[in-house]
Amino acid sequence: MAELIEVDDPTDPRLADYRDLRDVTLRRHLEAEHGLFLAEGEKVVRRAAEAGFAARSFLMAPRWLEGLDDVLAASPAPCFVVSEALAEQVSGFHVHRGALASFERRPLPALDDVLAGARSVLVLEDLVDHTNVGAAFRSGAALGFDAVLLSPRCADPLYRRAVKVAMGAVFALPWTRLDDWHDALPALSARGFTTVALTLAGDAVPVEQAVAGLDRVALVLGSEGPGLSARWQETADRRAVIPMAAGIDSLNVAAAAAVACYVTARRAAAGS
Amino acid sequence: MAELIEVDDPTDPRLADYRDLRDVTLRRHLEAEHGLFLAEGEKVVRRAAEAGFAARSFLMAPRWLEGLDDVLAASPAPCFVVSEALAEQVSGFHVHRGALASFERRPLPALDDVLAGARSVLVLEDLVDHTNVGAAFRSGAALGFDAVLLSPRCADPLYRRAVKVAMGAVFALPWTRLDDWHDALPALSARGFTTVALTLAGDAVPVEQAVAGLDRVALVLGSEGPGLSARWQETADRRAVIPMAAGIDSLNVAAAAAVACYVTARRAAAGS
Ligand SMILES: C[S@@+](CC[C@H](N)C(=O)[O-])C[C@H]1O[C@@H](n2cnc3c(N)ncnc32)[C@H](O)[C@@H]1O
Ligand SMILES: C[S@@+](CC[C@H](N)C(=O)[O-])C[C@H]1O[C@@H](n2cnc3c(N)ncnc32)[C@H](O)[C@@H]1O
Repeated sequence: MAELIEVDDPTDPRLADYRDLRDVTLRRHLEAEHGLFLAEGEKVVRRAAEAGFAARSFLMAPRWLEGLDDVLAASPAPCFVVSEALAEQVSGFHVHRGALASFERRPLPALDDVLAGARSVLVLEDLVDHTNVGAAFRSGAALGFDAVLLSPRCADPLYRRAVKVAMGAVFALPWTRLDDWHDALPALSARGFTTVALTLAGDAVPVEQAVAGLDRVALVLGSEGPGLSARWQETADRRAVIPMAAGIDSLNVAAAAAVACYVTARRAAAGS
Repeated sequence: MAELIEVDDPTDPRLADYRDLRDVTLRRHLEAEHGLFLAEGEKVVRRAAEAGFAARSFLMAPRWLEGLDDVLAASPAPCFVVSEALAEQVSGFHVHRGALASFERRPLPALDDVLAGARSVLVLEDLVDHTNVGAAFRSGAALGFDAVLLSPRCADPLYRRAVKVAMGAVFALPWTRLDDWHDALPALSARGFTTVALTLAGDAVPVEQAVAGLDRVALVLGSEGPGLSARWQETADRRAVIPMAAGIDSLNVAAAAAVACYVTARRAAAGS
């Protein structure tokens, strides 16, 4: 049962987990050093708790308590009860959706554990924007994908903004980070996945055709600016494009992920 | 030929168009009152100019001038040359992509002009998030849609953030705002479009089936929180769903737009 603790001093050190939420650089250090991540809004806090993450603490205005009383009842972590003005002062922005909570990160699972039983996985190379990472998780989960793999430098899916956009899908979908960028795709091929690089390269075939008949598929998407690295384009088993109207450069990576997941989830079975 | 004017006073009134770009409320008023919109980054500034919008002024650090010299040469508007520090001070954020420009808005075209010759149109009801509006335009343009229609309260596609996310698609794709929310969909049906509401309603059919064989289609998407209004769900000719995995609430509206546009652009022709 979470102890309710009223706090009215914005400098109270117990609120440290919630400071300066708009300062991405500062938050990255703070969250990495303390092994924490933040969830924002009743729904997302609930999903994190239901997924078994251990809360470090909760931060709520009085009127948000009721909606989460079962979650608080089940947690030994303290709940700091503050005015909305103080929540805003500490976090640096208007907390639209109410409740905030700080959770302990867990060690990342091994690649083979994430891939066990998976038939369709999404692989993201070096995405910079947390919104795009969160959106890719949400689309992947909604469209029947089984797991997500991240390149060593891809933005963190447990960053607050990614967690929020993903609406909890970062808790639902198994994921891990690939240690070895250079041979990441051959390592997936060796495990029985056909790696399909989504790219605008001239030799790419339409994605429906590229995935037809495949059993295990890894869809590989590149970063917002430069797109997929030459190394990953070359080492993928196939290169696929989402056909576009003339004169358009590219789709946003999250839109490309949604379309490619939709098409891949509906791929014709082998021999059909 | 744009006159280059060095400015080193952050309070210079000629920089008024570029103030406080992070303050959404303030910007909304300022942009509406002065009938302007902002473009950010070389590519987007270029596209706005190429689409025939008249610049009010440009704001650039010296090193960004060269990339846009042809655009500047073709414009009579002044170009304020400032240090990057001053650009940041005035606008309130780090101007990653360089160039900023302020353009005159144009009167919105009449609905019948936007629909003339269109076969696939996207209709957005009350979207709040500028990122989603911009992403929907970009996906629509990339996937072969001909026009976009906005409900009276849908967020502004010419807001800086929407323009940036759309990568210029808000200039390429004809669009307008619907005056009459209540009878918006019947008005489209009367013009020969089958209106297909994307919704999670129980009676919705899979989107591939809903659009098969249709000639003119209007895909209708709802807002981030509540989804489509009851009125629009009821007055649409068809209700369609993108099938999802169990346990997932919904796709992000921009992801749903991408998938639905992809499917609709590839719809089987009537009688096939
Ligand atoms: C914004 S795009 C990057 C565009 C980059 N300038 C390029 O030429 O690859 C980000 C990622 O989305 C995916 N993508 C976007 N549009 C695509 C399309 N039409 N077909 C296949 N992949 C696409 C690719 O994985 C790409 O790396
Ligand atoms: C985030 S959803 C809103 C969800 C809202 N809670 C509801 O129940 O409708 C925003 C919009 O995206 C579209 N959308 C999202 N997922 C969809 C799906 N699986 N099928 C059809 N439309 C979907 C709908 O147009 C919806 O109004």
